[in-house]
Amino acid sequence: MQATYQALLSYGYADLSMARIADELDKSKAATYYYYDSKDDLLVALLDYTIDRFERSIDTEFGDDPKADLDHLVEKLLPLREDEKPHRIFTVLVVLRAQAVSNDAFREQFTRLDEKIAATIRDIIQRGVDDGVFRDVDTTRVAEHVFATIAGTRYGRATTDRDVVAETRVSLAAYVDSELVRR
Amino acid sequence: MQATYQALLSYGYADLSMARIADELDKSKAATYYYYDSKDDLLVALLDYTIDRFERSIDTEFGDDPKADLDHLVEKLLPLREDEKPHRIFTVLVVLRAQAVSNDAFREQFTRLDEKIAATIRDIIQRGVDDGVFRDVDTTRVAEHVFATIAGTRYGRATTDRDVVAETRVSLAAYVDSELVRR
Repeated sequence: MQATYQALLSYGYADLSMARIADELDKSKAATYYYYDSKDDLLVALLDYTIDRFERSIDTEFGDDPKADLDHLVEKLLPLREDEKPHRIFTVLVVLRAQAVSNDAFREQFTRLDEKIAATIRDIIQRGVDDGVFRDVDTTRVAEHVFATIAGTRYGRATTDRDVVAETRVSLAAYVDSELVRR
Repeated sequence: MQATYQALLSYGYADLSMARIADELDKSKAATYYYYDSKDDLLVALLDYTIDRFERSIDTEFGDDPKADLDHLVEKLLPLREDEKPHRIFTVLVVLRAQAVSNDAFREQFTRLDEKIAATIRDIIQRGVDDGVFRDVDTTRVAEHVFATIAGTRYGRATTDRDVVAETRVSLAAYVDSELVRR
């Protein structure tokens, strides 16, 4: 999987080939890659693996305080500074997501990823409502708003020279505060 | 330009070629496409043309009422139903935007597009503040929040089977109302 990421970053989707992925590996491992019928089969498997790992990691990170959990999730999904490794993974995801416009197998994976993130935000908000620390809002509406703001900010950072993370982090905190926090 | 859009939708970026674009045209026009040195040169010119046209159309659409102008812009950028033609253009933009991850000429065009949209939202909000109908907010912060929410929602619709436009349209209206509208 690391070799596939590396080859994608070096060559881009259009110029990626099974041979170039194999080149990133030593020979004994390279043979295993020929189990996949095509470049797209391999890339969908890569996505499946990446999303599984994300799902497992995210479910273990929450505590008892819905407000703190929501702040933590926003920080995780929208870091002020991108560390090298997550930034590379996110960049690769932007490249692969463009395939989802016309390829159903890719589209299915990104639907699963986005649904998992939205459900995670929704569940935290619902916990806050149940605990009485959040107001009794439409959890889906607020969760989708928070998720869309995060997704749009990251997409802009990956594909332009604009970086508005500092602005949307402040505005999201204000949004959560005014929409959710009970006074 | 229509031929290039059509060829992009039929073949995707990876399998697009100058010959396939020329195939979409009658012969007399096809020759003109050979003025471009490469597929990417042609696609950057396509983006440049599309963004110019968008800039000209958007500046003529506003009136005297900042709140109505902001509502109009949100509706335009985030339509509840996608008509066939704008939907196709937006889908093509998602495919081309993935190139901006690694190609500076594409990145420059998308930086220009996003800056124009953000500046348009910012200017409307500033007009509302100056007129006294909006509260004296940080216009950049509110504008970037509105833009990121729109961008994230559209990106999700183009690349997944999820469609949360109805939810984020309601949440954006509530956001604008609580952040901006003076009581």
